[in-house]
Amino acid sequence: MSHASEISDGACDHVTEFRLVRADCTWSRQTADRERGEGRLSDARIYESSSEDGVTWTVVSPIVFTYRVIQCESLLDASNDTLLFGHISSPTELQALKNNSKAMKRFIVIDETVNDLYGSQVAAYFGARGVTYKILSLPTTEENKSMTLVTRILEEVHKFGIDRRTEPIIAIGGGVCLDITGLAASLYRRRTPYIRVPTTLLAYIDASVGAKTGVNFANGKNKLGSYIPPMAAFLDRSFLCTLPRRHISNGMAEMLKMALMKHRGLFELLEKDGRHLLDSSFQPSGRMPENMHTDAASVSTRLAIETMLEELAPNLWEDDLDRLVDFGHIISPELEMKILPALLHGEAVNIDMAFMVYVAHERGFLTEEEKRRIIVCMRSLDLPVWHSDCTLDLVQKSLTERLQHSGGFLRMPLPTALGKAKIFNDIEESIMCQAFKKWCDEQCETTMKTE
Amino acid sequence: MSHASEISDGACDHVTEFRLVRADCTWSRQTADRERGEGRLSDARIYESSSEDGVTWTVVSPIVFTYRVIQCESLLDASNDTLLFGHISSPTELQALKNNSKAMKRFIVIDETVNDLYGSQVAAYFGARGVTYKILSLPTTEENKSMTLVTRILEEVHKFGIDRRTEPIIAIGGGVCLDITGLAASLYRRRTPYIRVPTTLLAYIDASVGAKTGVNFANGKNKLGSYIPPMAAFLDRSFLCTLPRRHISNGMAEMLKMALMKHRGLFELLEKDGRHLLDSSFQPSGRMPENMHTDAASVSTRLAIETMLEELAPNLWEDDLDRLVDFGHIISPELEMKILPALLHGEAVNIDMAFMVYVAHERGFLTEEEKRRIIVCMRSLDLPVWHSDCTLDLVQKSLTERLQHSGGFLRMPLPTALGKAKIFNDIEESIMCQAFKKWCDEQCETTMKTE
Repeated sequence: MSHASEISDGACDHVTEFRLVRADCTWSRQTADRERGEGRLSDARIYESSSEDGVTWTVVSPIVFTYRVIQCESLLDASNDTLLFGHISSPTELQALKNNSKAMKRFIVIDETVNDLYGSQVAAYFGARGVTYKILSLPTTEENKSMTLVTRILEEVHKFGIDRRTEPIIAIGGGVCLDITGLAASLYRRRTPYIRVPTTLLAYIDASVGAKTGVNFANGKNKLGSYIPPMAAFLDRSFLCTLPRRHISNGMAEMLKMALMKHRGLFELLEKDGRHLLDSSFQPSGRMPENMHTDAASVSTRLAIETMLEELAPNLWEDDLDRLVDFGHIISPELEMKILPALLHGEAVNIDMAFMVYVAHERGFLTEEEKRRIIVCMRSLDLPVWHSDCTLDLVQKSLTERLQHSGGFLRMPLPTALGKAKIFNDIEESIMCQAFKKWCDEQCETTMKTE
Repeated sequence: MSHASEISDGACDHVTEFRLVRADCTWSRQTADRERGEGRLSDARIYESSSEDGVTWTVVSPIVFTYRVIQCESLLDASNDTLLFGHISSPTELQALKNNSKAMKRFIVIDETVNDLYGSQVAAYFGARGVTYKILSLPTTEENKSMTLVTRILEEVHKFGIDRRTEPIIAIGGGVCLDITGLAASLYRRRTPYIRVPTTLLAYIDASVGAKTGVNFANGKNKLGSYIPPMAAFLDRSFLCTLPRRHISNGMAEMLKMALMKHRGLFELLEKDGRHLLDSSFQPSGRMPENMHTDAASVSTRLAIETMLEELAPNLWEDDLDRLVDFGHIISPELEMKILPALLHGEAVNIDMAFMVYVAHERGFLTEEEKRRIIVCMRSLDLPVWHSDCTLDLVQKSLTERLQHSGGFLRMPLPTALGKAKIFNDIEESIMCQAFKKWCDEQCETTMKTE
């Protein structure tokens, strides 16, 4: 790692690179050209330059984030270790914790509705495992997603008392619950580990697998937050059996996003089995023994997570603004702000994607037949493909916003074939208008019909 | 980087390591043993294992923090580029910004007292540079260091509107001002760049050079916060000329800490010139032209920063709990909580250090003469070396607290010679008591005399 060339500037020509070596509790600087002495070498570097005006030090220090995403079953079964120990990867650390006679403590934040459905099971789990626990049930709706709830969590955590190193906070609920608990944990004592247990399909494939936390602020969606990943996310599909059908559709929109951007196989699976997955809430059919690795519910969720992790892991803090996962998120934020709570997030995303499919078709990336297949698939998942409030004005306003917040480039992901995509910075006004017109002509009518 | 061995556990024996390669806007996983294809390789890795129970992915993703610490002069001189552009290290980026005809915006948070002294100069600077600016003056005292002030900053930033990428928030003030502004910036849109301009000696050598931000919460000091470094800290000693003498002493305690732990030369400089530095508030004498690189004020601040950076850069997120910089911070937190606001932070730290010097002497690490020299030096800096509220009970309570929050180890830094130190986990009760008795016998009396 040599940043010296980037770091020098006109005013101070000579930059010295220092490595950091630890011996006997003390870190010392060593110039990079020197033969390495004894001691532990840090990945951090310090670059120093001095001129008549003063001294400049540039610190370059990598922090390594490690987190686990675990697809599992029977998470609340008292015999299952995952909820208590699944975040620990080192076998020696695990053994030490299991041998420790001191009573463990866990603080659990749970969504109010989820608490009604699963609260007693959660309590039974920790009770059976001899854990001292506190379950905080909160109304984690989009309207309540603010610092007020975060502060509430912090007060309760502080009162309960946890060991910041070994007793992760556990969030059980949908995206809002996971986001606010994540933010509370990342603030408490500058970083307290936490665990995500999603109970909605959207959170299962989206909020759980990345690093983002957040709350709304000053009428802005997720305007405050952090990029601190959980220690682990535990994904158990059985929670989905109590999820309303519309919320299954909602999650499938983000699944379809990953399919359109990156994975033709996943798209074809959703085309073929998507409707059944929606009907069955991703649950085993009961008719035949399901195989964790071959049934449609397992394969589709696994592919959604794998493709998502591929895009998130190398860009955990979103330093790179060229993001395929932004597909469906160009126009939808404006649309959501305009007509909340009429549309769920995934529904707004799907309307955005449907329009973008028309843009991709207009630009010659998708054939008429491919466009048709995508729209048919969306409809089969009960997802809206058009909305009267998504006007050309709103589209244009969204693109202007996008330009402002993306460093002057549009960075618009578009499918270039089924399961393939690229990011574009130019989009002709005429193409946009033609696509919009065709979209309205073809989808407005059919949408009206089915309503 | 191979974490595969740590990541495997009993339940799933086979772990596959994936690298991430980007081609044509799309990230793809590639097994580590495969010949590398075209495209950009990420430093992140994904480890996958599957068993009958499900699939586990472990994401390992390094985030590189880069920040600059710049010692400079005449920061508020309109001809000086530092305040506007000093955070930018790339010459091309700098040129692009300077060529940009769009008016720049800057949001400045300034301490109320500092605003009285320097507010008009700050306004004049940005006015002269044609910058659209907003100066938010706040009473940034220890008592006000809470989320309330952070929210206040966030509301004003949001109203003013800044480009999250190119318009860093600037904090001008003491440690509290820098800490709350840093927290606000790290929350706003999940991370907005910020700049620290310290106006106290303590902030100059301590709060400015690390990554920590924070506010007090539920009676706990810095219970909420983050580890997000500023883009840059601009250190201009001329602010110190208006700082009350007691606050110069206050900062010199942290300077002495670094000297005792790591740098005999810095200790000897403080022994020899410390009193003069205190008398002159680290300002040029005016009698002779000072050399940025040889006068005592420059050398001592530079050494304090260099030794501090050496210890902070490799441990930016404090993952390693063995920290030499914790010297003076074992007993002082309890003492501060007990008698705030009677003692300033550096004063409490110095009382802690003075006691620890007695412990180090009792253990045979420091000679009687070395102990005497250190205490004499402390006194010459007008720092308290004993306090009646620092009882043996309080010492013992502090060590118990320390054990709890440091993963079961004491991790107590102690000088083992002048400018050298080690970290100890064992400390005999009898040594502690003898040291305490001697400390009281020798310092209580002299302290009384000088009061």
